[in-house]
Amino acid sequence: MMPISDSKQSERRAASLPIALTMGDACGIGPEIIARLWRTALADGCFVVGDVAAMRRAVALTGGLLAVARIDCAADALDMPPACVPVLQVDAIPSDLLDARVGQVDARAGKAAALSIEAAVRLVLGGEAGAIVTAPIHKEAFAAAGVPYPGHTEMLQALAARGGVAPPVRMMLANDQLRTVLVTIHMSLRDAIEAVTFDAVLETIQITHRCAQRAGQHQPRIAVAGLNPHAGEAGLFGDEELRIIGPAVEAARREGIDARGPFAPDTVFMRARHAPAPAGSPAGTTGHVGEFDFVVAMTHDHGLIPVKYLGVENGVNVTLGLPFVRTSPDHGTAFDIAGTAVADPSSLLAALRMARTLMSTA
Amino acid sequence: MMPISDSKQSERRAASLPIALTMGDACGIGPEIIARLWRTALADGCFVVGDVAAMRRAVALTGGLLAVARIDCAADALDMPPACVPVLQVDAIPSDLLDARVGQVDARAGKAAALSIEAAVRLVLGGEAGAIVTAPIHKEAFAAAGVPYPGHTEMLQALAARGGVAPPVRMMLANDQLRTVLVTIHMSLRDAIEAVTFDAVLETIQITHRCAQRAGQHQPRIAVAGLNPHAGEAGLFGDEELRIIGPAVEAARREGIDARGPFAPDTVFMRARHAPAPAGSPAGTTGHVGEFDFVVAMTHDHGLIPVKYLGVENGVNVTLGLPFVRTSPDHGTAFDIAGTAVADPSSLLAALRMARTLMSTA
Repeated sequence: MMPISDSKQSERRAASLPIALTMGDACGIGPEIIARLWRTALADGCFVVGDVAAMRRAVALTGGLLAVARIDCAADALDMPPACVPVLQVDAIPSDLLDARVGQVDARAGKAAALSIEAAVRLVLGGEAGAIVTAPIHKEAFAAAGVPYPGHTEMLQALAARGGVAPPVRMMLANDQLRTVLVTIHMSLRDAIEAVTFDAVLETIQITHRCAQRAGQHQPRIAVAGLNPHAGEAGLFGDEELRIIGPAVEAARREGIDARGPFAPDTVFMRARHAPAPAGSPAGTTGHVGEFDFVVAMTHDHGLIPVKYLGVENGVNVTLGLPFVRTSPDHGTAFDIAGTAVADPSSLLAALRMARTLMSTA
Repeated sequence: MMPISDSKQSERRAASLPIALTMGDACGIGPEIIARLWRTALADGCFVVGDVAAMRRAVALTGGLLAVARIDCAADALDMPPACVPVLQVDAIPSDLLDARVGQVDARAGKAAALSIEAAVRLVLGGEAGAIVTAPIHKEAFAAAGVPYPGHTEMLQALAARGGVAPPVRMMLANDQLRTVLVTIHMSLRDAIEAVTFDAVLETIQITHRCAQRAGQHQPRIAVAGLNPHAGEAGLFGDEELRIIGPAVEAARREGIDARGPFAPDTVFMRARHAPAPAGSPAGTTGHVGEFDFVVAMTHDHGLIPVKYLGVENGVNVTLGLPFVRTSPDHGTAFDIAGTAVADPSSLLAALRMARTLMSTA
């Protein structure tokens, strides 16, 4: 393990490094929503990892007026003229990538997407990029290209493995008001109940805590939701809170983590919601001040229902537990609208903002 | 069964009848939040079923300036002078009720609360009241008084029984933006999964449909949420959607009900959310138009997390399936603040508004 002082130094450096945006599946909306990003000031210090030709096509599709510049190394992204999209060309991307039909599954697009992710991970692990924001890939295109991972998360875990051991990760879904970290995700509710173990809950709390600390938050307030209605009402409606979740919260507290709960699922998200008074409100208007910085949720839908409730445009997916910051928009390749220039870049913008927040150190 | 024309007539009559507010537990915040109601125009046409002395105390506590008038029958409530709280005294209420200490469990308060509910149900079943809005009771006080029901719902079901058969009911939680009806409520998540049966889902859809029709909505749009993440993703994460929920939705549709789904739980509530543009918004501002009128949720927390997410003040609890309209605020007796005049009547106000909405016929 790296000594703390070195690690701190590398974190400080990371915050000033450029951000790598992987192009995603070139037949989906990835390239065009990335191109739109360069119409905002937010893209400063970012660069695309992918294919120059595909990005040129996306820029033309979304109204031109931007130059696409091939760069040789990530650092070049920090010194670009305005209205210029820096692209680090990934060597092995098939030269006939643009022959792949937009809106359809194509092995070439799958291969290009996977290669872009690999390249981005090399950059971030090598200290050349500060974070990765991934545009959507298509799972079937991945499979058609023979990529040995079902999706981003598994691929990133494998690429981040040390000594053959992949780091445990958790999915966080976040927007401006709420951040929830999930103990279980893509399994039946029946299986999810079995997967709520002491270790799984404690590890989720620890991962959440470490991620927040790396982002400069010394003592994040982590609420842990229960599994059962009213968090079991003292064992009356299920005992997972007494047997599993409560003890995991206690164990985390003994490690100095400010974890609290288990709380009733139906009100903990409301309590954590952070909604400052809207701009232009009369003087003295206060918004809703959230009691917690994160909510750890036992199931996919307990956690995602409240994050998505006010609209999915600004939802950001964050993979916690990797040795680098990785965020992504909370939507897919949207093959049905790809190539028509109507795709909304809001979630990608939010993912980029979130990456900057998580990179910043205190 | 009543012929349809008679039933329609009785519904029209119900809409102009006074609304009975049960006093709730006199040691809790019920009487004081009811008293506050009379500082608004909304209380017109309402009357309290309970105890005159307890209401006098609550009026004094909350700042006076209101008269409390003992009325002899419900109809008197329709012809009251301003700033006057009509109370129908329930005969058997213990005369030493005010000796019960505010903020504590007391059998006398439990008994008075139960008697008030009984009296209110007699009035609404006898055609003298149009709806019941219930102030909170305390379950322990009910038990101390020997009331043979754990809470409101069971008591109302029993009082509404015909031929010894209690009507099946469902809990709806609603606010201005969202109405969710729950298939399962106070049981462990493990048991809830087992309780999601074809009959339970279909009956929930039917009860929801009938309630909306009685309130004058001819063809309510009922979304049915799945149980598993992504509604099972075609059987990949659980098969309850394929085996149980989907067939129940189909069966409801064959009866002419506009039921749809099962939908992914994490987005269906967002899709149903109805949020008109706020007053004072610039011209042309549109809010979020909900796609559905109701969402049927399989579990307590899937349904309640989104309704409570924006704040619990305006949540209303509605018992669907009774032969009359019954709403209640979504909070308890709040013994910790009872008697201090700080209790917020917002949820009770919302419950009263909801009762009027459900009484109104097309």
